[in-house]
Amino acid sequence: MAEPKILATDTPDFEAAFERLLAFESAQDEAVDRAAATILEDVRARGDAALLDATRRFDGWNPASAADLVVDLDQARAALGRIGTAERDALEQAAARIRSYHERQRQPSWQFEEEDGTVLGQRVTPLDRVGLYVPGGKAAYPSSVLMNAVTAKVAGVHELAMVTPTPRGELNDYVLAAAAIAGVDSIYRVGGAQAVGAFAYGTATIAAVDKVVGPGNAYVAAAKRRVFGRVGIDMVAGPSEILVIADASADPRSVAMDLLSQAEHDELAQAILLTADDALLKKVANELRERARELPRAAIVAESVSGRGALIRVRDLDEACELANRIAPEHLELAVADPEALLPKIRHAGAIFLGHHTSEALGDYCAGPNHVLPTSRTARFSSPLGVYDFQKRSSLIGVSAKGATRLGRIAVTLARAEGLEAHARSAELRIAKDKP
Amino acid sequence: MAEPKILATDTPDFEAAFERLLAFESAQDEAVDRAAATILEDVRARGDAALLDATRRFDGWNPASAADLVVDLDQARAALGRIGTAERDALEQAAARIRSYHERQRQPSWQFEEEDGTVLGQRVTPLDRVGLYVPGGKAAYPSSVLMNAVTAKVAGVHELAMVTPTPRGELNDYVLAAAAIAGVDSIYRVGGAQAVGAFAYGTATIAAVDKVVGPGNAYVAAAKRRVFGRVGIDMVAGPSEILVIADASADPRSVAMDLLSQAEHDELAQAILLTADDALLKKVANELRERARELPRAAIVAESVSGRGALIRVRDLDEACELANRIAPEHLELAVADPEALLPKIRHAGAIFLGHHTSEALGDYCAGPNHVLPTSRTARFSSPLGVYDFQKRSSLIGVSAKGATRLGRIAVTLARAEGLEAHARSAELRIAKDKP
Repeated sequence: MAEPKILATDTPDFEAAFERLLAFESAQDEAVDRAAATILEDVRARGDAALLDATRRFDGWNPASAADLVVDLDQARAALGRIGTAERDALEQAAARIRSYHERQRQPSWQFEEEDGTVLGQRVTPLDRVGLYVPGGKAAYPSSVLMNAVTAKVAGVHELAMVTPTPRGELNDYVLAAAAIAGVDSIYRVGGAQAVGAFAYGTATIAAVDKVVGPGNAYVAAAKRRVFGRVGIDMVAGPSEILVIADASADPRSVAMDLLSQAEHDELAQAILLTADDALLKKVANELRERARELPRAAIVAESVSGRGALIRVRDLDEACELANRIAPEHLELAVADPEALLPKIRHAGAIFLGHHTSEALGDYCAGPNHVLPTSRTARFSSPLGVYDFQKRSSLIGVSAKGATRLGRIAVTLARAEGLEAHARSAELRIAKDKP
Repeated sequence: MAEPKILATDTPDFEAAFERLLAFESAQDEAVDRAAATILEDVRARGDAALLDATRRFDGWNPASAADLVVDLDQARAALGRIGTAERDALEQAAARIRSYHERQRQPSWQFEEEDGTVLGQRVTPLDRVGLYVPGGKAAYPSSVLMNAVTAKVAGVHELAMVTPTPRGELNDYVLAAAAIAGVDSIYRVGGAQAVGAFAYGTATIAAVDKVVGPGNAYVAAAKRRVFGRVGIDMVAGPSEILVIADASADPRSVAMDLLSQAEHDELAQAILLTADDALLKKVANELRERARELPRAAIVAESVSGRGALIRVRDLDEACELANRIAPEHLELAVADPEALLPKIRHAGAIFLGHHTSEALGDYCAGPNHVLPTSRTARFSSPLGVYDFQKRSSLIGVSAKGATRLGRIAVTLARAEGLEAHARSAELRIAKDKP
């Protein structure tokens, strides 16, 4: 049964209980890591042959040759005709909104000239090639394809390759349709650490990329950690989390369903409510219990709510904001009468949902902002997936003759203070001899 | 002796030789990693006591208590009076230029309202607490303090803590002076994996931070990798690199000294020249040999130039740009008559130095852009250290009543397609019942 812990900040044991609630560490499994390393090494050494072997072994179907791993883009476009009209419309509208929001994240290159003619600047350019990992089977989410692929395309990524495992050979039509809508450039039916290996090292069939993004299971996560440095990776996500701050104006049914929508993701997902209103807290607790049992994923929900969920009675909204900053949640709902008033007190959160009409689910699918968000308290130092993750910057420095003399003197002094004589001489060679 | 490899792209063995030149992999030393893990665990378990033990063991001085690890800010300010006036002026001018450049990297928060009153946005906020690692001993570089600390302060970081080991108890006055100029908030004389542990877990003396930045030795790098996730980290830098593209208009003395300025960093640093001009190539080779032996760090330079350096004759400047993109160098000098003409052909480089007056050394110290740059081909997907590394973003979503109905329908359709019923219901609860 879905039975959340009920805590109150004014009880003496609160601090210890709160610490336990947050004390989640995603243990890295040594066996998983070694298995991922072995597969990566095999892909590096044997390329396509290793992909075929791993696919036969783990995915339950038998590709005849590497050509079988390639999904024709026509096949993806055909999926658009196979799915329902309502679903196709929904995907297209979601994609349009995601595109429109992320276009505002584009950053221009800039440069400026100083008085002596020295030019300084920052050039922003897209990544050449990006690899998108999309889980297969039951966790195949077209929304996740849109969030990653549309964002990469808005950034201007030249070539976006997608991999997805096809357990027993089955391809998910929603995933294919989302790839077609987002403009993915190539698709391969391969998954696991072997797909990450193909992206990192390249094979005859799958070209190496510059960055690998997208969620995956423990083997995929371990492989991404291992290839990091050779290629870029996005964050390695932990379990999903929601924190709801609610006051008496909140609808307990909505609050409870929002908590449950997080809990249905997986057993480790975390849903927490902070409220100063005891009556609301009790109503939400009741709703949680009642609604949880009606859900198709009732078993997952019950484990998540009972194991990691909590309803916490706080003294006031200020205290709620303080706790929210300690939690630094992936999703933060401000289900209060005046959400704007709380906003300045919130320092860390992946996405902030304002007011009673804004369910997290809208953000998950179609509001526009990205649903790939920092988990496990990393919102203290990291950001939602964005256009900036698919671009990189280069500094531009063009020093004029005068500038070389002026700046050269500073550089010579500092280089000698650091004991770097060649640095000093290289600056000195550009200092005009005839000037004082 | 400094004897660079000489290659030419029109020879049949070039491709293999070029691959070998780039095939550097920073092997992670298992023993170093285990040692770092042990130290981290000790700091986590015993706090200050572990810091004191490690300092006694590795740093060759004997702190009486944890209070001895604290460097008073007055002491840092006093260092400003102890160093030479020229050095102080140079540090202050460099800091002012770094500040001025990085102020242009600040990004504003933004939001916009849609027709139905739905508000979407992106809030940009600084990190709360950042820890800056500064190496001690011979690699103590005040310029590195400025590049990290000024940038963090421009971003608005609330509290910037600095750690630096003090071998045999010695503090570097230039480093202290740079910290005072940059506005570092607290300084501790502790280094190695133990300092990284203090930043990650916090001790009674050193508070935990949200992100750790700054260069360090292999133990520091291993410790940073291990604490990543609990705190943010900057890139783990590989050996420094310079790539010079030069034409007949280049001064061979300047080109040679620029290559040497990279080579003097350490034995693994890589300096490469690309030119279509055979006469220039020969002159640079001669200059390299002659000048290298005059340098104080002649032994390091000789090993770097002979082991990892190369002078490569290319067919033309277009080919030079193609190779540059494959190398994706940390520093790229365009020592050609018309550098602007090459710029559009360059896709990957940490910093680009334009024209004959722009030595890399100016960028290292005082041009303004950051000298912390992506190494080992990571410029394909990552950027110079910048204000953006000390800020994070939160998405803002405030959906209006009308928006909740409009967006809710999309979300419900997609949630059901993904089999996430609680997501669907949570959106459904906000769909107005009385509207079609």
